[in-house]
Amino acid sequence: MPFEYYRTVRFADTDAAGVVFFARYLAICHEAYEEALGAAGMELGKFFVANAVVVPIARSECDYLRPLHPGDRLRLTVTPALLTPESFALRYEIFRLGPPDKLAARARTEHVCIAASQRSRQPLPPALAAWIAQG
Amino acid sequence: MPFEYYRTVRFADTDAAGVVFFARYLAICHEAYEEALGAAGMELGKFFVANAVVVPIARSECDYLRPLHPGDRLRLTVTPALLTPESFALRYEIFRLGPPDKLAARARTEHVCIAASQRSRQPLPPALAAWIAQG
Amino acid sequence: MPFEYYRTVRFADTDAAGVVFFARYLAICHEAYEEALGAAGMELGKFFVANAVVVPIARSECDYLRPLHPGDRLRLTVTPALLTPESFALRYEIFRLGPPDKLAARARTEHVCIAASQRSRQPLPPALAAWIAQG
Amino acid sequence: MPFEYYRTVRFADTDAAGVVFFARYLAICHEAYEEALGAAGMELGKFFVANAVVVPIARSECDYLRPLHPGDRLRLTVTPALLTPESFALRYEIFRLGPPDKLAARARTEHVCIAASQRSRQPLPPALAAWIAQG
Repeated sequence: MPFEYYRTVRFADTDAAGVVFFARYLAICHEAYEEALGAAGMELGKFFVANAVVVPIARSECDYLRPLHPGDRLRLTVTPALLTPESFALRYEIFRLGPPDKLAARARTEHVCIAASQRSRQPLPPALAAWIAQG
Repeated sequence: MPFEYYRTVRFADTDAAGVVFFARYLAICHEAYEEALGAAGMELGKFFVANAVVVPIARSECDYLRPLHPGDRLRLTVTPALLTPESFALRYEIFRLGPPDKLAARARTEHVCIAASQRSRQPLPPALAAWIAQG
Repeated sequence: MPFEYYRTVRFADTDAAGVVFFARYLAICHEAYEEALGAAGMELGKFFVANAVVVPIARSECDYLRPLHPGDRLRLTVTPALLTPESFALRYEIFRLGPPDKLAARARTEHVCIAASQRSRQPLPPALAAWIAQG
Repeated sequence: MPFEYYRTVRFADTDAAGVVFFARYLAICHEAYEEALGAAGMELGKFFVANAVVVPIARSECDYLRPLHPGDRLRLTVTPALLTPESFALRYEIFRLGPPDKLAARARTEHVCIAASQRSRQPLPPALAAWIAQG
Protein backbone atom coordinates (compact mmCIF):
# COMPACT_ATOMS: atom_id res chain seq x y z
CA MET A 1 0.00 0.00 0.00
CA PRO A 2 1.53 3.30 -0.98
CA PHE A 3 1.44 6.16 1.52
CA GLU A 4 -1.23 8.78 0.82
CA TYR A 5 -0.94 12.52 1.30
CA TYR A 6 -3.65 15.16 0.78
CA ARG A 7 -2.92 18.72 -0.18
CA THR A 8 -4.72 21.79 -1.55
CA VAL A 9 -3.08 23.83 -4.33
CA ARG A 10 -2.14 27.26 -2.99
CA PHE A 11 -1.63 30.56 -4.78
CA ALA A 12 2.07 30.46 -3.91
CA ASP A 13 2.34 27.17 -5.86
CA THR A 14 1.19 28.82 -9.08
CA ASP A 15 2.76 31.16 -11.60
CA ALA A 16 1.54 33.79 -14.05
CA ALA A 17 0.33 31.05 -16.42
CA GLY A 18 -2.40 30.45 -13.83
CA VAL A 19 -1.30 26.93 -12.93
CA VAL A 20 1.18 25.22 -10.63
CA PHE A 21 4.80 26.02 -11.58
CA PHE A 22 6.50 22.83 -12.81
CA ALA A 23 9.18 22.75 -10.12
CA ARG A 24 6.51 23.01 -7.41
CA TYR A 25 5.15 19.56 -8.36
CA LEU A 26 8.42 18.15 -7.06
CA ALA A 27 8.28 20.29 -3.92
CA ILE A 28 4.77 18.95 -3.25
CA CYS A 29 6.06 15.39 -3.76
CA HIS A 30 8.75 16.11 -1.18
CA GLU A 31 6.06 17.15 1.31
CA ALA A 32 4.45 13.74 0.83
CA TYR A 33 7.83 12.10 1.50
CA GLU A 34 8.29 14.15 4.69
CA GLU A 35 4.78 13.22 5.82
CA ALA A 36 5.41 9.54 5.06
CA LEU A 37 8.62 9.59 7.10
CA GLY A 38 6.83 11.33 9.95
CA ALA A 39 4.02 8.76 9.90
CA ALA A 40 6.69 6.05 10.15
CA GLY A 41 8.23 7.72 13.20
CA MET A 42 11.14 9.42 11.45
CA GLU A 43 11.42 13.14 11.12
CA LEU A 44 13.54 14.66 8.38
CA GLY A 45 16.05 16.98 10.01
CA LYS A 46 16.05 15.11 13.31
CA PHE A 47 16.22 11.48 12.22
CA PHE A 48 19.09 12.07 9.83
CA VAL A 49 20.99 14.30 12.23
CA ALA A 50 20.63 11.64 14.94
CA ASN A 51 22.09 9.06 12.53
CA ALA A 52 24.84 11.44 11.31
CA VAL A 53 23.75 10.78 7.74
CA VAL A 54 22.13 12.81 4.99
CA VAL A 55 20.09 11.45 2.11
CA PRO A 56 20.40 13.95 -0.72
CA ILE A 57 18.39 13.49 -3.87
CA ALA A 58 20.60 12.30 -6.71
CA ARG A 59 18.00 12.40 -9.46
CA SER A 60 14.45 13.59 -10.07
CA GLU A 61 12.09 13.12 -12.98
CA CYS A 62 8.51 14.21 -13.47
CA ASP A 63 5.90 13.80 -16.20
CA TYR A 64 3.34 16.59 -16.16
CA LEU A 65 0.00 15.28 -17.43
CA ARG A 66 -2.49 17.97 -16.39
CA PRO A 67 -2.35 21.55 -15.17
CA LEU A 68 -3.30 22.22 -11.54
CA HIS A 69 -5.15 25.35 -10.41
CA PRO A 70 -5.45 27.24 -7.09
CA GLY A 71 -7.93 25.46 -4.85
CA ASP A 72 -7.51 22.07 -6.55
CA ARG A 73 -7.58 19.24 -4.03
CA LEU A 74 -4.75 16.73 -4.52
CA ARG A 75 -4.08 13.18 -3.41
CA LEU A 76 -0.50 11.96 -3.69
CA THR A 77 0.77 8.43 -3.37
CA VAL A 78 4.37 7.66 -2.40
CA THR A 79 5.89 4.23 -3.07
CA PRO A 80 9.45 3.54 -1.89
CA ALA A 81 11.75 0.92 -3.40
CA LEU A 82 15.25 -0.13 -2.35
CA LEU A 83 17.88 0.37 -5.07
CA THR A 84 21.08 -0.65 -3.25
CA PRO A 85 21.90 -0.96 0.47
CA GLU A 86 22.81 2.74 0.33
CA SER A 87 20.07 4.13 -1.92
CA PHE A 88 16.37 4.05 -2.67
CA ALA A 89 13.82 5.49 -5.06
CA LEU A 90 10.41 7.03 -4.44
CA ARG A 91 7.64 6.92 -7.01
CA TYR A 92 4.89 9.52 -6.74
CA GLU A 93 1.53 9.92 -8.38
CA ILE A 94 -0.36 13.19 -8.05
CA PHE A 95 -4.13 12.96 -8.51
CA ARG A 96 -6.46 15.92 -8.83
CA LEU A 97 -9.53 14.98 -6.82
CA GLY A 98 -12.78 14.82 -8.76
CA PRO A 99 -15.02 13.13 -9.19
CA PRO A 100 -13.57 11.62 -11.13
CA ASP A 101 -9.98 11.76 -9.84
CA LYS A 102 -7.50 12.48 -12.61
CA LEU A 103 -3.82 11.58 -12.69
CA ALA A 104 -2.03 14.94 -13.00
CA ALA A 105 1.62 13.92 -12.73
CA ARG A 106 4.01 11.05 -12.14
CA ALA A 107 7.36 11.69 -10.49
CA ARG A 108 10.34 9.75 -9.21
CA THR A 109 13.27 10.68 -6.99
CA GLU A 110 16.46 8.78 -6.14
CA HIS A 111 18.05 9.21 -2.73
CA VAL A 112 21.54 8.22 -1.62
CA CYS A 113 22.55 7.85 2.01
CA ILE A 114 25.91 9.42 2.82
CA ALA A 115 27.84 10.22 5.98
CA ALA A 116 27.29 13.88 6.80
CA SER A 117 31.00 14.36 7.51
CA GLN A 118 33.00 12.60 4.76
CA ARG A 119 30.28 12.45 2.08
CA SER A 120 30.91 8.71 1.61
CA ARG A 121 28.08 6.26 0.92
CA GLN A 122 26.55 4.64 3.99
CA PRO A 123 24.03 1.86 4.52
CA LEU A 124 20.52 3.20 5.11
CA PRO A 125 19.65 3.45 8.83
CA PRO A 126 17.55 0.40 9.88
CA ALA A 127 14.34 2.40 10.50
CA LEU A 128 14.55 3.87 7.01
CA ALA A 129 15.34 0.50 5.44
CA ALA A 130 12.35 -0.99 7.27
CA TRP A 131 10.02 1.71 5.94
CA ILE A 132 11.25 1.09 2.39
CA ALA A 133 10.93 -2.69 2.76
CA GLN A 134 7.25 -2.47 3.67
CA GLY A 135 6.55 0.21 0.99
CA MET B 1 -14.22 33.27 16.50
CA PRO B 2 -11.15 33.51 14.27
CA PHE B 3 -10.72 30.95 11.51
CA GLU B 4 -8.20 28.21 12.30
CA TYR B 5 -5.76 26.57 9.91
CA TYR B 6 -3.35 23.72 10.63
CA ARG B 7 -0.10 23.23 8.80
CA THR B 8 3.17 21.29 9.14
CA VAL B 9 6.46 23.08 8.46
CA ARG B 10 8.07 21.60 5.34
CA PHE B 11 11.69 21.50 4.22
CA ALA B 12 10.86 23.82 1.33
CA ASP B 13 9.73 26.45 3.88
CA THR B 14 13.16 26.56 5.51
CA ASP B 15 16.52 28.02 4.56
CA ALA B 16 20.16 27.28 5.31
CA ALA B 17 19.78 28.78 8.79
CA GLY B 18 17.72 25.67 9.57
CA VAL B 19 14.46 27.53 10.19
CA VAL B 20 11.52 28.90 8.20
CA PHE B 21 12.61 31.73 5.85
CA PHE B 22 11.02 34.97 7.03
CA ALA B 23 9.03 35.62 3.85
CA ARG B 24 7.52 32.12 4.07
CA TYR B 25 5.68 33.08 7.28
CA LEU B 26 3.60 35.44 5.13
CA ALA B 27 3.07 32.79 2.44
CA ILE B 28 1.81 30.42 5.14
CA CYS B 29 -0.54 33.15 6.40
CA HIS B 30 -1.88 33.50 2.86
CA GLU B 31 -2.65 29.78 2.80
CA ALA B 32 -4.79 30.28 5.90
CA TYR B 33 -6.58 33.15 4.14
CA GLU B 34 -7.23 30.96 1.08
CA GLU B 35 -8.53 28.17 3.32
CA ALA B 36 -10.78 30.61 5.21
CA LEU B 37 -12.26 31.90 1.95
CA GLY B 38 -12.80 28.35 0.72
CA ALA B 39 -14.54 27.39 3.98
CA ALA B 40 -16.84 30.41 3.47
CA GLY B 41 -17.72 29.25 -0.05
CA MET B 42 -15.41 31.58 -1.95
CA GLU B 43 -12.44 30.36 -3.89
CA LEU B 44 -9.57 32.70 -4.67
CA GLY B 45 -9.10 32.75 -8.44
CA LYS B 46 -12.69 31.82 -9.17
CA PHE B 47 -14.65 34.07 -6.84
CA PHE B 48 -12.73 37.18 -7.81
CA VAL B 49 -12.75 36.39 -11.50
CA ALA B 50 -16.54 35.87 -11.31
CA ASN B 51 -16.87 39.29 -9.69
CA ALA B 52 -14.40 40.95 -12.13
CA VAL B 53 -12.45 42.27 -9.16
CA VAL B 54 -9.04 41.65 -7.68
CA VAL B 55 -8.02 42.19 -4.07
CA PRO B 56 -4.29 42.82 -4.08
CA ILE B 57 -2.41 43.16 -0.84
CA ALA B 58 -1.49 46.78 -0.18
CA ARG B 59 0.54 46.22 2.97
CA SER B 60 2.00 43.42 5.05
CA GLU B 61 3.70 43.37 8.40
CA CYS B 62 5.01 40.52 10.50
CA ASP B 63 6.64 40.17 13.91
CA TYR B 64 8.80 37.07 14.17
CA LEU B 65 8.82 35.81 17.74
CA ARG B 66 10.21 32.28 17.48
CA PRO B 67 12.04 30.21 14.87
CA LEU B 68 10.14 27.33 13.25
CA HIS B 69 11.78 24.04 12.26
CA PRO B 70 10.96 21.29 9.73
CA GLY B 71 8.24 19.06 11.12
CA ASP B 72 6.86 21.70 13.52
CA ARG B 73 3.07 21.55 13.70
CA LEU B 74 1.43 24.98 13.37
CA ARG B 75 -1.96 26.42 14.17
CA LEU B 76 -2.84 29.73 12.54
CA THR B 77 -5.73 32.01 13.36
CA VAL B 78 -7.11 34.51 10.84
CA THR B 79 -9.26 37.44 11.94
CA PRO B 80 -10.72 39.77 9.28
CA ALA B 81 -11.74 43.38 9.90
CA LEU B 82 -13.36 45.88 7.57
CA LEU B 83 -11.28 49.02 6.99
CA THR B 84 -13.40 50.89 4.40
CA PRO B 85 -16.17 49.70 2.05
CA GLU B 86 -13.37 48.84 -0.42
CA SER B 87 -10.72 47.40 1.88
CA PHE B 88 -10.11 45.07 4.79
CA ALA B 89 -7.34 43.81 7.02
CA LEU B 90 -6.47 40.31 8.19
CA ARG B 91 -4.70 39.62 11.45
CA TYR B 92 -2.84 36.35 11.80
CA GLU B 93 -1.29 34.54 14.70
CA ILE B 94 0.99 31.57 14.11
CA PHE B 95 1.29 29.12 17.01
CA ARG B 96 3.78 26.29 17.20
CA LEU B 97 1.89 23.39 18.70
CA GLY B 98 3.21 22.04 22.00
CA PRO B 99 2.31 21.33 24.58
CA PRO B 100 2.45 24.07 25.43
CA ASP B 101 1.54 26.00 22.27
CA LYS B 102 3.84 28.95 21.68
CA LEU B 103 3.07 32.09 19.72
CA ALA B 104 5.69 32.15 16.93
CA ALA B 105 4.58 35.16 14.87
CA ARG B 106 1.97 37.85 14.46
CA ALA B 107 1.18 39.19 10.99
CA ARG B 108 -1.24 41.55 9.34
CA THR B 109 -2.18 42.18 5.71
CA GLU B 110 -4.30 44.91 4.11
CA HIS B 111 -6.36 44.13 1.02
CA VAL B 112 -7.98 46.58 -1.39
CA CYS B 113 -10.74 45.62 -3.80
CA ILE B 114 -10.26 47.02 -7.29
CA ALA B 115 -11.86 46.45 -10.69
CA ALA B 116 -9.68 44.06 -12.66
CA SER B 117 -9.99 46.24 -15.77
CA GLN B 118 -9.49 49.88 -14.75
CA ARG B 119 -7.70 49.29 -11.40
CA SER B 120 -10.18 51.63 -9.64
CA ARG B 121 -11.39 50.94 -6.09
CA GLN B 122 -14.60 48.91 -5.87
CA PRO B 123 -16.89 47.96 -2.99
CA LEU B 124 -16.16 44.49 -1.65
CA PRO B 125 -18.42 41.81 -3.17
CA PRO B 126 -21.28 41.01 -0.72
CA ALA B 127 -20.09 37.46 0.05
CA LEU B 128 -16.67 38.79 0.99
CA ALA B 129 -18.14 41.64 3.04
CA ALA B 130 -20.34 39.11 4.86
CA TRP B 131 -17.35 36.93 5.72
CA ILE B 132 -15.50 39.94 7.10
CA ALA B 133 -18.52 41.12 9.08
CA GLN B 134 -18.79 37.82 10.94
CA GLY B 135 -15.01 37.54 11.44
CA MET C 1 26.90 27.88 -28.71
CA PRO C 2 24.62 27.32 -25.75
CA PHE C 3 23.12 30.32 -24.01
CA GLU C 4 24.83 31.28 -20.74
CA TYR C 5 23.18 32.58 -17.59
CA TYR C 6 24.87 33.70 -14.37
CA ARG C 7 23.23 33.50 -10.98
CA THR C 8 24.17 33.67 -7.30
CA VAL C 9 22.68 31.13 -4.89
CA ARG C 10 20.33 32.90 -2.47
CA PHE C 11 19.19 31.97 1.02
CA ALA C 12 15.65 31.49 -0.28
CA ASP C 13 16.99 28.78 -2.64
CA THR C 14 18.26 26.69 0.25
CA ASP C 15 16.64 24.48 2.87
CA ALA C 16 17.45 23.34 6.40
CA ALA C 17 20.05 20.91 5.04
CA GLY C 18 22.11 24.03 4.26
CA VAL C 19 22.08 23.55 0.49
CA VAL C 20 19.85 24.37 -2.47
CA PHE C 21 16.53 22.48 -2.27
CA PHE C 22 16.36 19.96 -5.14
CA ALA C 23 13.29 21.47 -6.82
CA ARG C 24 14.97 24.89 -6.88
CA TYR C 25 17.61 23.60 -9.32
CA LEU C 26 14.79 23.31 -11.87
CA ALA C 27 13.42 26.75 -11.00
CA ILE C 28 16.90 28.19 -11.57
CA CYS C 29 17.07 26.39 -14.92
CA HIS C 30 13.76 28.00 -15.85
CA GLU C 31 15.24 31.42 -15.11
CA ALA C 32 17.98 30.66 -17.64
CA TYR C 33 15.30 29.69 -20.18
CA GLU C 34 13.42 32.95 -19.55
CA GLU C 35 16.64 34.91 -19.93
CA ALA C 36 17.49 33.08 -23.16
CA LEU C 37 14.06 33.85 -24.61
CA GLY C 38 14.41 37.49 -23.58
CA ALA C 39 17.85 37.73 -25.20
CA ALA C 40 16.29 36.35 -28.41
CA GLY C 41 13.58 39.02 -28.34
CA MET C 42 10.79 36.91 -26.88
CA GLU C 43 9.37 37.47 -23.46
CA LEU C 44 7.57 34.67 -21.66
CA GLY C 45 4.11 35.90 -20.76
CA LYS C 46 3.96 38.40 -23.60
CA PHE C 47 5.29 36.42 -26.54
CA PHE C 48 3.06 33.44 -25.87
CA VAL C 49 -0.01 35.55 -25.15
CA ALA C 50 0.56 37.42 -28.42
CA ASN C 51 0.69 34.10 -30.25
CA ALA C 52 -2.33 32.67 -28.35
CA VAL C 53 -0.24 29.65 -27.42
CA VAL C 54 1.20 28.22 -24.24
CA VAL C 55 4.23 25.96 -23.97
CA PRO C 56 3.78 23.94 -20.79
CA ILE C 57 6.53 21.63 -19.61
CA ALA C 58 5.60 18.00 -20.25
CA ARG C 59 8.62 16.42 -18.56
CA SER C 60 11.58 17.37 -16.40
CA GLU C 61 14.59 15.42 -15.24
CA CYS C 62 17.59 16.45 -13.20
CA ASP C 63 20.77 14.77 -12.00
CA TYR C 64 22.16 16.38 -8.87
CA LEU C 65 25.93 16.03 -8.80
CA ARG C 66 27.04 18.49 -6.13
CA PRO C 67 25.41 20.49 -3.34
CA LEU C 68 25.17 24.26 -3.75
CA HIS C 69 25.52 26.72 -0.87
CA PRO C 70 24.35 30.30 -0.24
CA GLY C 71 26.64 32.71 -2.05
CA ASP C 72 27.84 30.17 -4.62
CA ARG C 73 28.24 31.74 -8.04
CA LEU C 74 26.63 29.69 -10.83
CA ARG C 75 26.95 29.55 -14.59
CA LEU C 76 24.17 27.77 -16.47
CA THR C 77 24.14 26.73 -20.08
CA VAL C 78 20.90 26.19 -22.00
CA THR C 79 20.83 24.19 -25.23
CA PRO C 80 17.54 23.88 -27.14
CA ALA C 81 16.69 21.04 -29.53
CA LEU C 82 13.62 20.52 -31.69
CA LEU C 83 11.72 17.31 -30.93
CA THR C 84 8.70 17.63 -33.27
CA PRO C 85 7.17 20.64 -35.07
CA GLU C 86 5.14 21.17 -31.87
CA SER C 87 7.69 20.42 -29.17
CA PHE C 88 11.27 20.96 -28.08
CA ALA C 89 13.68 20.04 -25.33
CA LEU C 90 16.11 22.14 -23.32
CA ARG C 91 19.28 20.72 -21.84
CA TYR C 92 20.84 22.56 -18.93
CA GLU C 93 24.15 22.33 -17.17
CA ILE C 94 24.70 24.10 -13.86
CA PHE C 95 28.31 24.89 -13.00
CA ARG C 96 29.52 26.16 -9.65
CA LEU C 97 32.13 28.76 -10.45
CA GLY C 98 35.60 28.07 -9.12
CA PRO C 99 38.30 28.02 -9.98
CA PRO C 100 37.96 25.37 -11.01
CA ASP C 101 34.36 25.35 -12.21
CA LYS C 102 32.53 22.19 -11.17
CA LEU C 103 29.51 20.65 -12.87
CA ALA C 104 26.82 20.65 -10.15
CA ALA C 105 23.77 19.39 -12.06
CA ARG C 106 22.44 18.35 -15.43
CA ALA C 107 18.77 18.91 -16.24
CA ARG C 108 16.40 18.56 -19.18
CA THR C 109 12.88 19.82 -19.82
CA GLU C 110 10.42 19.02 -22.61
CA HIS C 111 8.01 21.69 -23.81
CA VAL C 112 4.90 21.25 -25.94
CA CYS C 113 3.21 24.09 -27.80
CA ILE C 114 -0.55 24.11 -27.48
CA ALA C 115 -3.35 26.52 -28.31
CA ALA C 116 -4.28 28.40 -25.14
CA SER C 117 -7.98 27.92 -25.88
CA GLN C 118 -8.56 24.30 -26.97
CA ARG C 119 -5.35 22.79 -25.51
CA SER C 120 -4.57 21.14 -28.89
CA ARG C 121 -1.00 20.83 -30.18
CA GLN C 122 0.19 23.70 -32.35
CA PRO C 123 3.29 24.31 -34.45
CA LEU C 124 5.90 26.38 -32.59
CA PRO C 125 5.69 30.10 -33.44
CA PRO C 126 8.39 30.97 -36.06
CA ALA C 127 10.47 33.13 -33.70
CA LEU C 128 10.63 30.30 -31.17
CA ALA C 129 11.42 27.73 -33.88
CA ALA C 130 14.20 30.01 -35.13
CA TRP C 131 15.74 30.28 -31.66
CA ILE C 132 15.70 26.50 -31.29
CA ALA C 133 17.17 25.98 -34.77
CA GLN C 134 20.22 28.08 -33.96
CA GLY C 135 20.61 26.62 -30.45
CA MET D 1 24.54 56.18 -0.87
CA PRO D 2 22.24 53.19 -0.61
CA PHE D 3 23.37 49.89 -2.10
CA GLU D 4 21.81 49.07 -5.48
CA TYR D 5 20.73 45.64 -6.71
CA TYR D 6 19.31 44.75 -10.13
CA ARG D 7 16.97 41.86 -10.73
CA THR D 8 14.56 40.57 -13.39
CA VAL D 9 11.13 39.30 -12.34
CA ARG D 10 10.92 35.54 -12.98
CA PHE D 11 7.93 33.30 -13.55
CA ALA D 12 8.62 31.56 -10.25
CA ASP D 13 8.13 34.93 -8.49
CA THR D 14 4.57 35.27 -9.78
CA ASP D 15 1.25 33.66 -8.94
CA ALA D 16 -1.99 32.91 -10.77
CA ALA D 17 -3.00 36.58 -10.53
CA GLY D 18 -0.24 37.19 -13.11
CA VAL D 19 1.93 39.31 -10.86
CA VAL D 20 4.62 38.86 -8.21
CA PHE D 21 3.25 37.10 -5.10
CA PHE D 22 3.31 39.55 -2.16
CA ALA D 23 5.68 37.50 0.01
CA ARG D 24 8.17 37.30 -2.87
CA TYR D 25 8.76 41.07 -2.67
CA LEU D 26 10.38 40.43 0.71
CA ALA D 27 12.40 37.50 -0.63
CA ILE D 28 13.70 39.76 -3.40
CA CYS D 29 14.62 42.39 -0.80
CA HIS D 30 16.56 39.73 1.08
CA GLU D 31 18.54 38.98 -2.10
CA ALA D 32 19.55 42.64 -2.20
CA TYR D 33 20.66 42.39 1.45
CA GLU D 34 22.73 39.27 0.68
CA GLU D 35 24.30 41.02 -2.30
CA ALA D 36 25.06 44.11 -0.21
CA LEU D 37 26.76 42.00 2.45
CA GLY D 38 28.74 40.16 -0.21
CA ALA D 39 29.86 43.45 -1.77
CA ALA D 40 31.06 44.54 1.69
CA GLY D 41 33.10 41.35 2.06
CA MET D 42 30.69 39.44 4.29
CA GLU D 43 28.86 36.38 3.13
CA LEU D 44 25.66 35.30 4.83
CA GLY D 45 26.11 31.74 6.05
CA LYS D 46 29.88 32.04 6.34
CA PHE D 47 30.34 35.39 8.03
CA PHE D 48 27.80 34.66 10.73
CA VAL D 49 29.00 31.13 11.30
CA ALA D 50 32.56 32.45 11.66
CA ASN D 51 31.33 34.92 14.28
CA ALA D 52 29.13 32.31 16.04
CA VAL D 53 26.18 34.66 15.75
CA VAL D 54 22.91 34.69 13.82
CA VAL D 55 20.93 37.76 12.83
CA PRO D 56 17.31 36.64 12.51
CA ILE D 57 14.70 39.04 11.23
CA ALA D 58 12.49 40.24 14.07
CA ARG D 59 10.05 42.27 11.98
CA SER D 60 9.16 42.95 8.35
CA GLU D 61 6.83 45.40 6.72
CA CYS D 62 6.09 46.14 3.10
CA ASP D 63 3.89 48.60 1.21
CA TYR D 64 2.91 47.30 -2.22
CA LEU D 65 2.44 50.20 -4.61
CA ARG D 66 2.44 48.58 -8.06
CA PRO D 67 2.10 45.08 -9.46
CA LEU D 68 5.19 43.50 -11.04
CA HIS D 69 5.05 41.21 -14.08
CA PRO D 70 7.33 38.48 -15.49
CA GLY D 71 10.22 40.09 -17.33
CA ASP D 72 10.01 43.40 -15.43
CA ARG D 73 13.45 44.79 -14.70
CA LEU D 74 13.89 45.95 -11.10
CA ARG D 75 16.30 48.18 -9.24
CA LEU D 76 16.37 47.86 -5.47
CA THR D 77 18.03 50.15 -2.98
CA VAL D 78 19.06 48.98 0.49
CA THR D 79 19.75 51.45 3.27
CA PRO D 80 20.95 50.14 6.67
CA ALA D 81 20.48 51.97 9.95
CA LEU D 82 21.70 51.04 13.43
CA LEU D 83 18.90 50.61 15.98
CA THR D 84 20.83 49.47 19.06
CA PRO D 85 24.33 47.97 19.48
CA GLU D 86 22.67 44.57 18.88
CA SER D 87 20.18 45.39 16.15
CA PHE D 88 19.70 47.23 12.87
CA ALA D 89 17.06 48.00 10.28
CA LEU D 90 17.16 47.85 6.49
CA ARG D 91 14.97 50.04 4.33
CA TYR D 92 14.31 48.89 0.78
CA GLU D 93 12.80 50.54 -2.25
CA ILE D 94 11.88 48.46 -5.29
CA PHE D 95 11.73 50.35 -8.58
CA ARG D 96 10.36 48.95 -11.81
CA LEU D 97 12.70 50.22 -14.51
CA GLY D 98 11.14 52.39 -17.20
CA PRO D 99 11.57 54.88 -18.53
CA PRO D 100 10.31 56.28 -16.37
CA ASP D 101 11.27 54.22 -13.31
CA LYS D 102 8.32 53.69 -10.98
CA LEU D 103 8.45 52.98 -7.25
CA ALA D 104 6.73 49.60 -6.88
CA ALA D 105 7.23 48.86 -3.18
CA ARG D 106 8.79 50.06 0.04
CA ALA D 107 9.89 47.53 2.65
CA ARG D 108 11.70 47.45 5.97
CA THR D 109 13.22 44.65 8.02
CA GLU D 110 14.61 44.61 11.56
CA HIS D 111 17.50 42.30 12.42
CA VAL D 112 18.75 41.29 15.86
CA CYS D 113 22.16 39.78 16.48
CA ILE D 114 22.12 36.82 18.84
CA ALA D 115 24.59 34.17 19.90
CA ALA D 116 23.90 31.02 17.89
CA SER D 117 24.21 28.87 21.01
CA GLN D 118 22.30 30.58 23.85
CA ARG D 119 20.04 32.83 21.74
CA SER D 120 21.07 35.86 23.83
CA ARG D 121 21.54 39.30 22.28
CA GLN D 122 25.07 40.07 21.13
CA PRO D 123 26.80 43.21 19.83
CA LEU D 124 26.96 43.28 16.03
CA PRO D 125 30.30 42.00 14.69
CA PRO D 126 32.58 44.96 13.81
CA ALA D 127 32.49 44.36 10.02
CA LEU D 128 28.70 44.39 10.08
CA ALA D 129 28.58 47.49 12.29
CA ALA D 130 30.99 49.21 9.90
CA TRP D 131 28.79 48.42 6.91
CA ILE D 132 25.75 49.82 8.72
CA ALA D 133 27.63 52.94 9.83
CA GLN D 134 28.53 53.86 6.26
CA GLY D 135 25.03 52.95 4.93
